[in-house]
Amino acid sequence: MLEKIMELISLKDFKRLKELLEDANHADISECLDELQDEDLAIIFRLLPKDEAADIFAYMEPDTQEKLVSLLSDKEIGEVISELFVDDAADLISEMPANLVTRILKNADPQKRKEINEILKYPEDSAGSIMTTEYVDLRDSLTVKEAFDRIRAIGLDKETVYICYVLDNSRHLIGVTTVKDLLMHDYDTKIRDIMEENVVTINTTDDQEEVAKMFDKYDYLAMPVVDGENRMVGIVTVDDAIDVMSEENEEDFEKMAGMAPSDESYMKTSIFTLYKNRIVWLLFLMLSATFTGIIITRYEEAFAHVAILVSFIPMIMDAGGNCGSQSSTMVIRGLATDDIELKDAFKVWAKEAVVAVMCGATLAVVNGVRIMIMYPDRPDKLLLAAVIGLTLIITALLAKSMGALLPMLAKILKMDPATMASPLITTVVDTCSIFIYFNIAVLLMHIAV
Amino acid sequence: MLEKIMELISLKDFKRLKELLEDANHADISECLDELQDEDLAIIFRLLPKDEAADIFAYMEPDTQEKLVSLLSDKEIGEVISELFVDDAADLISEMPANLVTRILKNADPQKRKEINEILKYPEDSAGSIMTTEYVDLRDSLTVKEAFDRIRAIGLDKETVYICYVLDNSRHLIGVTTVKDLLMHDYDTKIRDIMEENVVTINTTDDQEEVAKMFDKYDYLAMPVVDGENRMVGIVTVDDAIDVMSEENEEDFEKMAGMAPSDESYMKTSIFTLYKNRIVWLLFLMLSATFTGIIITRYEEAFAHVAILVSFIPMIMDAGGNCGSQSSTMVIRGLATDDIELKDAFKVWAKEAVVAVMCGATLAVVNGVRIMIMYPDRPDKLLLAAVIGLTLIITALLAKSMGALLPMLAKILKMDPATMASPLITTVVDTCSIFIYFNIAVLLMHIAV
Repeated sequence: MLEKIMELISLKDFKRLKELLEDANHADISECLDELQDEDLAIIFRLLPKDEAADIFAYMEPDTQEKLVSLLSDKEIGEVISELFVDDAADLISEMPANLVTRILKNADPQKRKEINEILKYPEDSAGSIMTTEYVDLRDSLTVKEAFDRIRAIGLDKETVYICYVLDNSRHLIGVTTVKDLLMHDYDTKIRDIMEENVVTINTTDDQEEVAKMFDKYDYLAMPVVDGENRMVGIVTVDDAIDVMSEENEEDFEKMAGMAPSDESYMKTSIFTLYKNRIVWLLFLMLSATFTGIIITRYEEAFAHVAILVSFIPMIMDAGGNCGSQSSTMVIRGLATDDIELKDAFKVWAKEAVVAVMCGATLAVVNGVRIMIMYPDRPDKLLLAAVIGLTLIITALLAKSMGALLPMLAKILKMDPATMASPLITTVVDTCSIFIYFNIAVLLMHIAV
Repeated sequence: MLEKIMELISLKDFKRLKELLEDANHADISECLDELQDEDLAIIFRLLPKDEAADIFAYMEPDTQEKLVSLLSDKEIGEVISELFVDDAADLISEMPANLVTRILKNADPQKRKEINEILKYPEDSAGSIMTTEYVDLRDSLTVKEAFDRIRAIGLDKETVYICYVLDNSRHLIGVTTVKDLLMHDYDTKIRDIMEENVVTINTTDDQEEVAKMFDKYDYLAMPVVDGENRMVGIVTVDDAIDVMSEENEEDFEKMAGMAPSDESYMKTSIFTLYKNRIVWLLFLMLSATFTGIIITRYEEAFAHVAILVSFIPMIMDAGGNCGSQSSTMVIRGLATDDIELKDAFKVWAKEAVVAVMCGATLAVVNGVRIMIMYPDRPDKLLLAAVIGLTLIITALLAKSMGALLPMLAKILKMDPATMASPLITTVVDTCSIFIYFNIAVLLMHIAV
């Protein structure tokens, strides 16, 4: 589609361009706009049907939105903002530089401006910051017929009309009903007789991650957001919950690989930002690895006598690191999805410990066989296999225990368990496993240090 | 709520129990049922209102469903199955042991059985296997009024009524309309005048992960599934797409930590299964690490002369591993979310290379300072800092290049990029970095090997 658009622009065939844009899907159009140069972007945007432009605008990448806002006139900005849903408008404003924010708010109509500011006052990542205030409210005294009339009258600007919220005089949420329920009842049924009174609500201050989990659990299309006094203030819709889910997942992937999380696209992140997000952890982990180096220095005598000991260092370090990251990943994800709770700590540890001994023993046996094959002429080959086998079992036990317990400890300390992932666990386990390795070697091989 | 239920069971107060269950949310009830013993489970399930039991059943964990099916009579099973949505019934059957499958299918009514078998014939993880065949279809000649009548008549058993699909005589999909659109138009408007003809469709054979991505992009509540001839066969709803998203994400987390993915809950996975999922990669990686050991053995002379060289092995290995897993995570996730495409390979590599040199240089400088401080009296301290600094820069460049390119290579080879994550990259980078390290040391320090 992008090539088609480019071609029509270069031909200046605005009539066919307009037709093409009228038929196309909004998400697809905005994807094309993200790729266009400034002038072309403004041309295309002005060709869009007025009533569809705002929806297409909402799908665009933040930097395309920024480009476009700086290209449009005050009047045009006002038109787009008035058509945007309040949550999308608030999102837009939180991403723009200050001078554009002023222009946007100046050109919004007063009512919209008030609603946007309302949402902007909620802390980042709270339910309040992702909700929209545009929902359908009903009274319980209405009939189904009257409810439909109300939806027809006010529904056009609402983000969803399928879930309707029943409020009392003080805007307390007393029930919820769906258009499906309305359709399945006679026109003269009262709302109070069909509404569901047991409503699951979200609080404005709830974390957005918790909100996303509730959507995963309850399968709703929208959920009501209430303030401290159960007064309805807005709704979160399922598409916003999906966005939160993707965002939080990407953050976890990044944290678990030892990077500062960022919600920008990789392709659009600058080299300096990538460097900045990565170097802190790299430095921290490099300096932590110094401890392993210091331990090795203490055992110089050991490998001066038995040089082959050095050649097993990488294998032991890798085995420990991999064992640890398997466990930490399971526990971090388990905590994130509420599959594992803190009260399960002992059960989880016990499980990991048994798996660790089984894995460690398997590695020890396979490695023993390998040593027999690779060094058939060494007189100390059995002793060597024993030293390394024992190290592998203890290292696996230690690595899996840390992998299981450190994320839980982080949770207790109100830190994000995702920081206790592979990079950190590997570095900590390295130090311990090398220490264990040389101690076992010195002991079993009777080396004087 | 669970305690309340347990208490009422022990008091045998079935009247209050029934009231409690009538008011409660279905997802919450099923969560409680997952925790109950066999007898209690059957008691509670029989107390549930008939029309709600199937919905609550659909929310349960597979093993609770299995327990329950074996406790219920044939008649009761038949009732539940007839109320279940077809996609949930098909899910149920694909999770049950063979003897229960036979019982379930025997007790389903013939029409339902046919529909279930229809869905079961699609390959696992395809759009066909997660769709439901229960949707509202309309003709383009109907008026809005007639459309509402049809929805009222057939809507009760449909998974969603909000999106209606307009089919021609041969069941080809020719348009789509929403209840919101219907509500916003007069009762005598024809469907053909308001339907959207440009419909985004899913093919039955599309991968479920692609389907989930389309929901993330287009923000739809449901999407139509068509066969090879554009004949409509079913719909996928947003709640199923959310389930796929969570499932695929957890799989990626597990693969990226070197484990065979499993879609069972951690708490319910047996120790043997955990062992089995983990040991294969551990063994593979341990044996790969042997190469690093062989390289070290070749340079015994080097560290016999300069023993301190050994103490930097862990730090170099960790730095390389961490650099590599940062890059591979970014690229694997970028590929998974379509932020990075294969045609960007060179751009991505170039970006990673620059970041690598910046990170490597920073590590080299900090490490140089550390060596000056820790070993002020060594005459070769500058040379040592140079050897290690140079190794760090080359290792970072190599690690980040592999981290960027191996996931892309996997994608070209039609493998899952997620297998090219931290564990594998770390092991490969280890071997290379140790080789580079000793070569630089031998060269710069003029050691004869």
